[in-house]
Amino acid sequence: MKVGIVGASGYVGGEVVRLLLSHPEAEVSMVTSTKHVGEYLHRIHPSLKGFTKLTFSELDYDKMSDKCDLVFTAVPHGTATDIVKTFYDRGMKIIDLSADYRLHNPEDYTKWYGWEHPHPDYLSKSVFGIPELHRDKIKNSQLVSCPGCMAVTSTLALYPLIKNDLIDTEHIVVDAKIGSSGAGAGGTSGTQHAMRAGVIRPYKPAKHRHTGEIEQELSEVAGKKIKVSMSPHAVDIVRGILCTNHTFLKKEVNEKDIWKIYRAEFGEEPFIRLIRDKNGLYKFPDPKFVVGSNFCDIGFELDEDNNRLIALSASDNLMKGAAGSAVQNMNIMSGFDEKQGIMYSPLTPV
Amino acid sequence: MKVGIVGASGYVGGEVVRLLLSHPEAEVSMVTSTKHVGEYLHRIHPSLKGFTKLTFSELDYDKMSDKCDLVFTAVPHGTATDIVKTFYDRGMKIIDLSADYRLHNPEDYTKWYGWEHPHPDYLSKSVFGIPELHRDKIKNSQLVSCPGCMAVTSTLALYPLIKNDLIDTEHIVVDAKIGSSGAGAGGTSGTQHAMRAGVIRPYKPAKHRHTGEIEQELSEVAGKKIKVSMSPHAVDIVRGILCTNHTFLKKEVNEKDIWKIYRAEFGEEPFIRLIRDKNGLYKFPDPKFVVGSNFCDIGFELDEDNNRLIALSASDNLMKGAAGSAVQNMNIMSGFDEKQGIMYSPLTPV
Amino acid sequence: MKVGIVGASGYVGGEVVRLLLSHPEAEVSMVTSTKHVGEYLHRIHPSLKGFTKLTFSELDYDKMSDKCDLVFTAVPHGTATDIVKTFYDRGMKIIDLSADYRLHNPEDYTKWYGWEHPHPDYLSKSVFGIPELHRDKIKNSQLVSCPGCMAVTSTLALYPLIKNDLIDTEHIVVDAKIGSSGAGAGGTSGTQHAMRAGVIRPYKPAKHRHTGEIEQELSEVAGKKIKVSMSPHAVDIVRGILCTNHTFLKKEVNEKDIWKIYRAEFGEEPFIRLIRDKNGLYKFPDPKFVVGSNFCDIGFELDEDNNRLIALSASDNLMKGAAGSAVQNMNIMSGFDEKQGIMYSPLTPV
Amino acid sequence: MKVGIVGASGYVGGEVVRLLLSHPEAEVSMVTSTKHVGEYLHRIHPSLKGFTKLTFSELDYDKMSDKCDLVFTAVPHGTATDIVKTFYDRGMKIIDLSADYRLHNPEDYTKWYGWEHPHPDYLSKSVFGIPELHRDKIKNSQLVSCPGCMAVTSTLALYPLIKNDLIDTEHIVVDAKIGSSGAGAGGTSGTQHAMRAGVIRPYKPAKHRHTGEIEQELSEVAGKKIKVSMSPHAVDIVRGILCTNHTFLKKEVNEKDIWKIYRAEFGEEPFIRLIRDKNGLYKFPDPKFVVGSNFCDIGFELDEDNNRLIALSASDNLMKGAAGSAVQNMNIMSGFDEKQGIMYSPLTPV
Repeated sequence: MKVGIVGASGYVGGEVVRLLLSHPEAEVSMVTSTKHVGEYLHRIHPSLKGFTKLTFSELDYDKMSDKCDLVFTAVPHGTATDIVKTFYDRGMKIIDLSADYRLHNPEDYTKWYGWEHPHPDYLSKSVFGIPELHRDKIKNSQLVSCPGCMAVTSTLALYPLIKNDLIDTEHIVVDAKIGSSGAGAGGTSGTQHAMRAGVIRPYKPAKHRHTGEIEQELSEVAGKKIKVSMSPHAVDIVRGILCTNHTFLKKEVNEKDIWKIYRAEFGEEPFIRLIRDKNGLYKFPDPKFVVGSNFCDIGFELDEDNNRLIALSASDNLMKGAAGSAVQNMNIMSGFDEKQGIMYSPLTPV
Repeated sequence: MKVGIVGASGYVGGEVVRLLLSHPEAEVSMVTSTKHVGEYLHRIHPSLKGFTKLTFSELDYDKMSDKCDLVFTAVPHGTATDIVKTFYDRGMKIIDLSADYRLHNPEDYTKWYGWEHPHPDYLSKSVFGIPELHRDKIKNSQLVSCPGCMAVTSTLALYPLIKNDLIDTEHIVVDAKIGSSGAGAGGTSGTQHAMRAGVIRPYKPAKHRHTGEIEQELSEVAGKKIKVSMSPHAVDIVRGILCTNHTFLKKEVNEKDIWKIYRAEFGEEPFIRLIRDKNGLYKFPDPKFVVGSNFCDIGFELDEDNNRLIALSASDNLMKGAAGSAVQNMNIMSGFDEKQGIMYSPLTPV
Repeated sequence: MKVGIVGASGYVGGEVVRLLLSHPEAEVSMVTSTKHVGEYLHRIHPSLKGFTKLTFSELDYDKMSDKCDLVFTAVPHGTATDIVKTFYDRGMKIIDLSADYRLHNPEDYTKWYGWEHPHPDYLSKSVFGIPELHRDKIKNSQLVSCPGCMAVTSTLALYPLIKNDLIDTEHIVVDAKIGSSGAGAGGTSGTQHAMRAGVIRPYKPAKHRHTGEIEQELSEVAGKKIKVSMSPHAVDIVRGILCTNHTFLKKEVNEKDIWKIYRAEFGEEPFIRLIRDKNGLYKFPDPKFVVGSNFCDIGFELDEDNNRLIALSASDNLMKGAAGSAVQNMNIMSGFDEKQGIMYSPLTPV
Repeated sequence: MKVGIVGASGYVGGEVVRLLLSHPEAEVSMVTSTKHVGEYLHRIHPSLKGFTKLTFSELDYDKMSDKCDLVFTAVPHGTATDIVKTFYDRGMKIIDLSADYRLHNPEDYTKWYGWEHPHPDYLSKSVFGIPELHRDKIKNSQLVSCPGCMAVTSTLALYPLIKNDLIDTEHIVVDAKIGSSGAGAGGTSGTQHAMRAGVIRPYKPAKHRHTGEIEQELSEVAGKKIKVSMSPHAVDIVRGILCTNHTFLKKEVNEKDIWKIYRAEFGEEPFIRLIRDKNGLYKFPDPKFVVGSNFCDIGFELDEDNNRLIALSASDNLMKGAAGSAVQNMNIMSGFDEKQGIMYSPLTPV
């Protein structure tokens, strides 16, 4: 299958390319960039030297439709609205990695992004790209919108708890910690190494945009409006995200009950690992042991003193949190083996 | 004033020595270690080369009482109980950096540490060493017990909220992130660089021992039992701690009200900085901008959507979180200027 | 092909297992450890959870010979001498990752390691495992000894210069920089995160053992004794190694001549990339863009002012510097496609 | 003494301010910036919150001459030529932290910087600001030019070797490793955290500008033209620099002889520590144990096999490598105690 990537010079776009260049069913036939037209792809992504001779093209809808069977869009939030619609109208399959088609309710764009969606009627055409929740819909969709990295990581841990009506939905606290690649390749004075290294920086303690996605997904399964209190922090790693999902139990349950619930939900999922060890190095999920893979590792701890259940989830923000999920969705949409081209073991230690 | 340090080979003991060697009123006259007797202090703490010719001695109570007016004890938890009592009985002033005299209630040692305190009647002789809360008592005390690094950092942010009855005391979530120096100089396979670098490791999501200290202090001011839900995480820095204190408001307040409360409580404190900026690099507390200093930086964000108040506090775990507080307590106990020998600006960028 | 790994609990052994578990021609049938017998492999290498249910066995020569067609030995230097000999005598194919069969001359063990080799007559049976230099010999060998990470990285950059008699062999300075995984999973107070983070630590400025391997290989091609001045430094990364090979030119050459020489030598090599860009992020080799792959990236700069040629080489010390090379050797010895199971793109950014 | 800092928003300017705000003899009366006029200094340097209420001013020569007795200039290379001359002509004392008055020979600016110096006759008015080499001249100078961080660090290690005619001056290799703060606060795509973290990046293997300074200083003491082969590398720390100075001995000397030479030269220097330990954590200089201080730690190793002497020197690039040296020079020029305001112990572990 021939694929194109719009916006391939960023970290997420580059990761999509990296995965596809080794994917047995995909052939990358076109990559675009606004800034680097004509340059070799491996100049911007030096890791890929030797894997491709591709150069960046301008975004030309005709050429891309011609050359590609499926398109990934990895452009900044707010700039994908028209691009996605244009490809959609031409009948192309699209996997969007921006936020522009994640939220089903047009009003949510006003609330979380501060702008009005120019194509509100297209929002319903998009499937939210968490395979573990929406595999069947993804299979038959023309447009899949991949979730934000914190959204997918947190949602996967919380979903079974909400579905099984286990927790107090008034006090869901998601404390997220994330590496610098999550901020993208563009930069500010605060993302310079000397200023970004060594931080534990709360960067949007309230009203972070990914909150809207988590609330959407949890509300859908709960059948009522769920509110989530999310606070992300930048920490001194490049790749990886940990969500510490602090929740309070509504009923008495023990550890075994909770494991049962997680196993029932995710026991057969190829990209979810349930983490449980009383000893050793890996008692709880930690991005350290996920980096480079498409896994979302999930575990938990019970705090009986406070009736608290701490659900922990870790992923590689560029893999399961972005490009890995995107290719997983491509596999599903295209009838390929879902694991193809993304079943890498984590790279440890790194 | 002549001071001695029991257990000077660890990170905390070493930091106490570092501060005292430049303190205008203190003279370090004796340092002990069990492992390094006879060795130069600067062999274990190479930074101090050129600042002292001291060597490590064995712990000899007679000599130490003879040579010192005040003793710092920086030995592992559980091993200070007798040492502190012995010095106390000899009439010496003691500043203890272990956990052994932090909790007032003997039963709390059973609960949080799993052992019975051998000298329960001495617990009431000890003052909990947060100057901002107990300055007057510290002034006249013979024994001060310095709080755990997470305890002091979190407590300072939460104390004014509890004192002013602002928050729901059933849902206080303290999500702490801390550097590797907090684990001390001893090590395990998990603290080796290759395994410890790059982590976001939840290491005791429930029932962490410092919780007991925070609950003690908050309960005291609340006049009722307060429960705290704390979860610490190891992150890839060496020094520094951030506490993200997620709380839920009981009444309607706005940003200004909360600033007033913090200012009223801490406006005159030399080592607390209230952080507030809508723009720029430093919108919220971050250990990055505190490292090397004795400051606890405090700030907050309001999450109106969820009626949540996120109180943020950052400190250097070896300074305000340990040795800096200890020397601050020494200054108070000894009638020195409280800022003496510890009013360093943070070292940035580092 | 059924393979066994002796010493699979270390970083190198773990990396061999990681690669083989995804290798299309290999089946890991036995892994040994002295400390972890009976434990799941994924407890020690949490990344591998989901990829295998193997547990660690004791080293039992009969069982291993029975179960395996080929054995990797990844035990500490000095402890492989007997193990390798025993398997050799049983007719097994062996790929040794220790230093015990790297040096051909028994006296070199006295010089560099300080002990006498117990089986000096077996040294000649071993082929030095750099495929780019000894592919043909490796093909037909029963025993391959994989080079040290600094040795292979440095040798690959220097070999063409020596072969073409380009440089003054009296002043070859190899300044190496390496991450913490190179030190192995065992630890000292100096490898604890708080002490190891932030270092640029010269750890053996003269007489480092890998020097012997580089000298052996370069001397062989030069047809005379070559001396190398190597100084390794520990830097604050986990994976990766850069060798800055400072050399002085014997004759006048220009940039193009040198590129020709490198291309002639390595132009067809699947795991060597020649790095050359006047602009952009990747002007010279840097482990940043190699990590996770089996590449050795090679580049250089001419310093006309001093008649100096700085040859730069970067690799992932656990991949090309250890396990990747080992599997590459296995592929060659077994008649598989040389790239199989190790042609991964580097993981960037990480 | 009233001091002003031109260009106080960068890392070096900020560090000068940090030191001076705690200096017993200095009062910071004016700080300038082109971008941040009117903003609080602590907004750009959050660490300094609580230490000053200063705001940034425009550079106004009249006001500055009026308000200040001495001026530090910390602006980018090439932009200080006129500023320094203007203050000089007004009779002000100046300490310049740019490269613009470091080189005595105007032609060196053409060679190393590619531009012609507009005020070549002023170069001779400037003293090169390494107190250990030029203390007497500094004492009576109106203009001191502080050396580059790599230049001062390397020169201090090499100077005694050249002065004592110990080494072959045709093969001096300086392999430098440096943290990200050395690149200044401005940034490129390569200095973004995600791209800068984890690197060992050779960024100017030949013809780095600081080479000119080292050559100037060594040639002066040698009485003949000395050539230095320097190659700097960016590594993953923020502060700190290590110079591995590989040299080859001209005569036979032993370890003791070399120590004598270093002690004779630097034994009384307050900011040079000679590092020597056969065991322990600190066998050789390492910026880890210097960070936050004004020390240059110097040590060495003999490589008898190759007649090589590896002289090692470590410093904090913002302290001894920039602001610390600058204040040391101020102290000397002003008749203050040379150690005043800069005798901090390193901050370890950090």
